[in-house]
Amino acid sequence: MKSFLQLKSVQQLQSLVKQPIDLTNSDLFTPKRIEAMRASAVGFDLLYATERVTSQVIEALFHLADETNVYEKMGKMQEGEEINAIEGFESERRSVLHTAMRDQFDHRQTATKALDASNLAKKELQKLEKFLSHLDRENRFTDLIQVGIGGSDLGPRALYLSLLPYCRPNHRLHFISNVDPDDANEILRTVDLKKTLIVVVSKSGTTLETLTNEEFVRSHLLKKGLNPKEHIIAVTGEKSPMDDPSRYLASFYIWDFVGGRYSATSMAGAVSLGFAVGFSSLMEILRGAHAMDLHAKTERNLPLLSALIGIWNRNFLHLPTVAVIPYSQALIRFPAHLQQLDMESNGKRVDKMGRSVDYATGPVVWGEIGTNSQHSFFQLIHQGVDPIPVEFIAFRKSQDPHDLEVKATISQEKLLANLFAQSIALAVGQKSTNPNKVFLGNRPNRVLLGDRMDPFSLGALLAFYEHKVAFQGFIWNVNSFDQEGVQLGKVLAGRILDLFAAERLHKPASEFDLGEAFLRILKEPQ
Amino acid sequence: MKSFLQLKSVQQLQSLVKQPIDLTNSDLFTPKRIEAMRASAVGFDLLYATERVTSQVIEALFHLADETNVYEKMGKMQEGEEINAIEGFESERRSVLHTAMRDQFDHRQTATKALDASNLAKKELQKLEKFLSHLDRENRFTDLIQVGIGGSDLGPRALYLSLLPYCRPNHRLHFISNVDPDDANEILRTVDLKKTLIVVVSKSGTTLETLTNEEFVRSHLLKKGLNPKEHIIAVTGEKSPMDDPSRYLASFYIWDFVGGRYSATSMAGAVSLGFAVGFSSLMEILRGAHAMDLHAKTERNLPLLSALIGIWNRNFLHLPTVAVIPYSQALIRFPAHLQQLDMESNGKRVDKMGRSVDYATGPVVWGEIGTNSQHSFFQLIHQGVDPIPVEFIAFRKSQDPHDLEVKATISQEKLLANLFAQSIALAVGQKSTNPNKVFLGNRPNRVLLGDRMDPFSLGALLAFYEHKVAFQGFIWNVNSFDQEGVQLGKVLAGRILDLFAAERLHKPASEFDLGEAFLRILKEPQ
Repeated sequence: MKSFLQLKSVQQLQSLVKQPIDLTNSDLFTPKRIEAMRASAVGFDLLYATERVTSQVIEALFHLADETNVYEKMGKMQEGEEINAIEGFESERRSVLHTAMRDQFDHRQTATKALDASNLAKKELQKLEKFLSHLDRENRFTDLIQVGIGGSDLGPRALYLSLLPYCRPNHRLHFISNVDPDDANEILRTVDLKKTLIVVVSKSGTTLETLTNEEFVRSHLLKKGLNPKEHIIAVTGEKSPMDDPSRYLASFYIWDFVGGRYSATSMAGAVSLGFAVGFSSLMEILRGAHAMDLHAKTERNLPLLSALIGIWNRNFLHLPTVAVIPYSQALIRFPAHLQQLDMESNGKRVDKMGRSVDYATGPVVWGEIGTNSQHSFFQLIHQGVDPIPVEFIAFRKSQDPHDLEVKATISQEKLLANLFAQSIALAVGQKSTNPNKVFLGNRPNRVLLGDRMDPFSLGALLAFYEHKVAFQGFIWNVNSFDQEGVQLGKVLAGRILDLFAAERLHKPASEFDLGEAFLRILKEPQ
Repeated sequence: MKSFLQLKSVQQLQSLVKQPIDLTNSDLFTPKRIEAMRASAVGFDLLYATERVTSQVIEALFHLADETNVYEKMGKMQEGEEINAIEGFESERRSVLHTAMRDQFDHRQTATKALDASNLAKKELQKLEKFLSHLDRENRFTDLIQVGIGGSDLGPRALYLSLLPYCRPNHRLHFISNVDPDDANEILRTVDLKKTLIVVVSKSGTTLETLTNEEFVRSHLLKKGLNPKEHIIAVTGEKSPMDDPSRYLASFYIWDFVGGRYSATSMAGAVSLGFAVGFSSLMEILRGAHAMDLHAKTERNLPLLSALIGIWNRNFLHLPTVAVIPYSQALIRFPAHLQQLDMESNGKRVDKMGRSVDYATGPVVWGEIGTNSQHSFFQLIHQGVDPIPVEFIAFRKSQDPHDLEVKATISQEKLLANLFAQSIALAVGQKSTNPNKVFLGNRPNRVLLGDRMDPFSLGALLAFYEHKVAFQGFIWNVNSFDQEGVQLGKVLAGRILDLFAAERLHKPASEFDLGEAFLRILKEPQ
């Protein structure tokens, strides 16, 4: 199998990038270019006239997609092939079936593994529907604390914050994730535990932070004279140490074919989100994600197009970071979710055959919402030394219809005007005789524009990025579904904890520092 | 004046970087190295044995500091010289006196401008103390909404979230910043306006988002039959359009010698923080910042050392981003504040004489708290293709003394063990016959370690980063105190808003898109 740099399309792209298109050319932006550089699907438009691409570059990029068999790989992923693997070396060897979690509607998968997974998910959804109705009848809980970290935190939290106006009255979510005791203490200060449900999420049932925080919450429940078994729900893998229904009010399953960062539409997110927005809105999230899953199997689909432009920026324009800037308050924590999704998936330096790569893979993904970020780090994006590609996300309409006209326009118009202005300013730049007022332009960016943030479009957006990341992984030929890079830190932390535990009679851990931790590690070579 | 690349120390550093020290060498980490690579001041230790530096590199870096006269520049800044300027071109020509805001204790500045500024600040602090006592006696307000964006939002919000356990009961803060109407609507849904104070912050009194949101809140107050004048406080510049005490319950001043991103210790942050934590804790924040201000004028001070190591990573190891990872739940939004502080200050490509720079300046600064980020993007930091320098921040003790022993250690010990383990793992790496389990190591990182996050240490930490950023700007010879890069987007947004306003009889803005915005800009060339 050819390596990335040997691909014919890569060589063509390397030749095309020698003279990238100049976005500061005022003749460039014709209605024709703008129209040609737009693609639409599942309620979203992708506007990319402000990227440093020509139709020739786009053709070469789709050639790259063909050369790397991305459609076949996406198909196999959704059918349940064991694509989470490194050939010739010990690795996870698992299917990657987060799509099965929402394969509950039309055009269901027929491949056995995918169908089995989808049926398992269906059973959990039915259990959840029943459980939520039961809660509604009892009306005992006004608050829910999700205890989880990584994918059991970032995705569900980002989704919840995206749907606040869709939440049912007196169905609030809170999150405890960090092992820092200040995290749990602060949340436990603000809720009435008597009326609080706790959902503990750990696929392995062994996550240090999560188990510790579960004990933290249990001890608080006991202190208040409450019975943990009447408050705590487990979401875990079958036969994990947490798979013990006798200890929990309810138990739901997740499986090793759904990775943490892809688990928001599994029970890792569904239990809490279902509580907050209700079961039917939850199903709308799944329906939107499923619509994007189906779309991702079609020719020249939207997540693939976005993936390819990202590869142009990363591997040919050599830009090492990507800023994701949603002009939508609802998406306030979506960049944090994308950070995990993208960087944990494609932050890899060996390919699927275990060879060190000699090309760039996953970039640093970071960002905050607009217009706030205009008043923060946009200075550097406009006038810093390095171009930063920007992915804007926006919606034509606000979630809440209440808006106010100030100086002849409403707030939503001001939001959209700022979004478009940034996109144009970054591309076109500005000349000036005052060097400090010069904007070089040629800052590549694109806009993903939806109609309104609602449960369906949120599901579609979530899946859009899941598939964008998967397509990039397919093209770079890395395994986007494991995370070996988190292991070493865990092992070393365990050894330092042993030190703390052993020495605590002599002095508290707060008196240790890096030096003593180091000596401990050095004394016990691996 | 010599340009950066012509400096003797820069040439020496370029020679030293040809053979950077190998952190994966197991003989390297002796107690001697660890002890030599530690510096302490104002309650913080900076541990940097895990950076790719030798004592020779550190000496050359301090030589760079001398060659660029950083002590003199820091002195002049704190004395009030007009360092916010570009020589030979129209520019702001202002003093930079955020340090005067907290120069209320010992060793006060004697230079006229600095003393005047400090006295102005003192007057506002006295007004605030009186006003807060008055509020305490009235006991009318339980909630406060800060309306502001950029520096009037990120710094105060980060500081508030850092001090939650220090907040007085029934003194909650909320923030409305974004022009997205969903931001204001969500906050206004959750507070009882009758018991809510509103602090509107805009130095110019013309910030689009802030004025719009002020009107938004005013209309809500009126709808509830409440008198805006009894609820809204103005924080603005003298003679700004908002400087109209007849419209506000109270008014406080900020000045053009305090930049937005440096304004958290001015009235832009002090009014809200004072309400939340009380006046005496507010003064402790200022006292901590002042202690660091004084320290920043001493030889080889801590912020300077951190600035220099950052320059080593940026200009010599050529690493384009910096991850700031606080292992402290209290610092959950501190990276967002640092993003503005650093990137808006040093995201510049012309120097103070208006020359285009031919060297790297401000990096992309991004980050989230640990241990959460270990379960998110640390995969890429450990095993991605590009090294990412990491700045860890941590405290020996948790804020809340309630902690729980699980498996022989308490949560705070687990937090610190993970911090040290990450620092070591990034530096030292791991060999393996399985390529997917290889960690290359040599990922530079350092740890800023304090005792406990409290008002004093928070103030010191805030000022530590303000001065780190200033020192880097001094060395790169850029103006860290203007933000011309935000202007172009504002102008273009205004034009698109005109389009929306003019066309709204024909169709709503939600039916426009980038194409029509573009045509508008193209039709009206600058």
